[in-house]
Amino acid sequence: MKATAQAGANIAIVKYWGNLDASLNLPLNSSISLTLDQANTIVTVEFSPNVGEDRVEIEGRPAAGYARERVIGHLNHLRQMGGTDAPARVASRSTFPPATGLAFSASFYAALTVAGLAALGLAVDPRTVSTVARLGSGSAARSVYGGWVEWVAGASHEESYAQVLAPRDWWAIRDVIAIVSDEPKAVPSTVGHAAAVSSPCHQGRLARTTEHLAMARTAIRNRDLALLGQVAEEQALLLHAVAMTGTPRALYWLPGTVAVMQQVLAWREEGWPAYFTLDAGPNVHVLTTVEDAPRVAASLCAIPGMQRTLVCAPGGPPVLGDVHLF
Amino acid sequence: MKATAQAGANIAIVKYWGNLDASLNLPLNSSISLTLDQANTIVTVEFSPNVGEDRVEIEGRPAAGYARERVIGHLNHLRQMGGTDAPARVASRSTFPPATGLAFSASFYAALTVAGLAALGLAVDPRTVSTVARLGSGSAARSVYGGWVEWVAGASHEESYAQVLAPRDWWAIRDVIAIVSDEPKAVPSTVGHAAAVSSPCHQGRLARTTEHLAMARTAIRNRDLALLGQVAEEQALLLHAVAMTGTPRALYWLPGTVAVMQQVLAWREEGWPAYFTLDAGPNVHVLTTVEDAPRVAASLCAIPGMQRTLVCAPGGPPVLGDVHLF
Repeated sequence: MKATAQAGANIAIVKYWGNLDASLNLPLNSSISLTLDQANTIVTVEFSPNVGEDRVEIEGRPAAGYARERVIGHLNHLRQMGGTDAPARVASRSTFPPATGLAFSASFYAALTVAGLAALGLAVDPRTVSTVARLGSGSAARSVYGGWVEWVAGASHEESYAQVLAPRDWWAIRDVIAIVSDEPKAVPSTVGHAAAVSSPCHQGRLARTTEHLAMARTAIRNRDLALLGQVAEEQALLLHAVAMTGTPRALYWLPGTVAVMQQVLAWREEGWPAYFTLDAGPNVHVLTTVEDAPRVAASLCAIPGMQRTLVCAPGGPPVLGDVHLF
Repeated sequence: MKATAQAGANIAIVKYWGNLDASLNLPLNSSISLTLDQANTIVTVEFSPNVGEDRVEIEGRPAAGYARERVIGHLNHLRQMGGTDAPARVASRSTFPPATGLAFSASFYAALTVAGLAALGLAVDPRTVSTVARLGSGSAARSVYGGWVEWVAGASHEESYAQVLAPRDWWAIRDVIAIVSDEPKAVPSTVGHAAAVSSPCHQGRLARTTEHLAMARTAIRNRDLALLGQVAEEQALLLHAVAMTGTPRALYWLPGTVAVMQQVLAWREEGWPAYFTLDAGPNVHVLTTVEDAPRVAASLCAIPGMQRTLVCAPGGPPVLGDVHLF
């Protein structure tokens, strides 16, 4: 009744922002992402009467309030599938800070789902794993796979799940994550998703996604970094346009965010193959080639406001491990 | 045949972004602004056969290329009104840098229009002055008045002009301009206006303007800084959402831009009555009270990336002067 899994965060090329049904994390549009190898979360979960009551520790600290309730809500889904009402203990460790727009909830809920299903002895098909992970965090539906993944929006719980577009080895690319802030963002993604429809930019963003999805699939199929980068940048700017003009407003950017974005644009003028993208937070992903990743990472470190970089290759699917966090 | 005029720049509360007819600067939406007293431009113009050919000096440097052609185009409008084909000499001096999103073209073309009409001995009504100034730069239609001004979009040259909502003495307010860059912006406003319709956010922004115009009028009528500030911030974010998602993209923000915006939001949490707004450029206007302006200005100067501040009160209408620039 105890298992540990590690799952990678993912960087969305076509973003998920806004729900058709928030209680089920049914998204308003399909999305495409790359699972990352160096940004990951290990989760150990144990279901046992000895636990007493549900205990949730995220990154070494007891979870409280909404963060705790959200994990317990997901444990309830897993318990229902396993036909048990045993209390659970959960602990996590990540290679990157949570709540900073680096898809912590994607890797956390993907790992929790995979570990939880294993702990309960449930063998289910990948589609079901993705569907269940989605209930914890929408983008976790994508992190249950490695490589390039598309989450098909769907209109019901059963129909909304991710699938692999190309495996991790398909395309050697690098995502140099520029961490400009470790601080939790002011507006959580769950609030941002709910606010999306209030933005005057929301409908325009949605209308652009079909085209962007097709472009992203083509870019992945052809290993076309310029096309992938174009979509990733436009999608990032659209997401933040919606976020900063919604109610409540989410102005996620910090000075360092803009410094990195402007630097990437300046590099492109000089011929560097580098493209920025951001999920809902201040930190910036710089997509580049294997060859250019070292100089991109080194140069990013020199930018004022930079805390550190994390150089990620495409990551694999979640793995179960024998070393538990407790 | 020689005259000098000084006109103030203006800060738009409801922004002008995108044209119905670019050749006439007919805007897609009405806009509202405040003319500023400390951000102004002096223009001397002389029509004389002795000039030889048109000579244009902007901020001490001979104008070239599009900047020169644009001024000559406006001189042609004035010459047509005055029934002359005499060549002209033009010179300007401003208290702030051009092409940085501080409405240089508004104050320049308002001053050029007023000086030009005087040099040609033409006495025309204020509506015509506004209409003609608009041909030089859309927002110059507003800078031919002092105080709070609304530019009614109109659907033809004759119907698109500005009028006064409230005089400069109506409301003692301060606009502390945070200058984070003196460098000319990468994408000129004329290009940005043309790109607006290509943005997925454009229609949403337009749909919001009727409501924002009504809110701005109410705020001015009731001297309600919180309401004015809300509109000014939302309009700024909408303009930049459109600019950064259009083709070509205009990402006007610099690290200092975001530093000031985030600082203003933090001040509000502490109870300071301060609101940001930006036109098309990296520099930030902070709207605040007379009482709070000194501490706002002093604190802004401590922000990394800040070059200097310019504290503006509401400005008056353009004035003719006897001291010429040449």
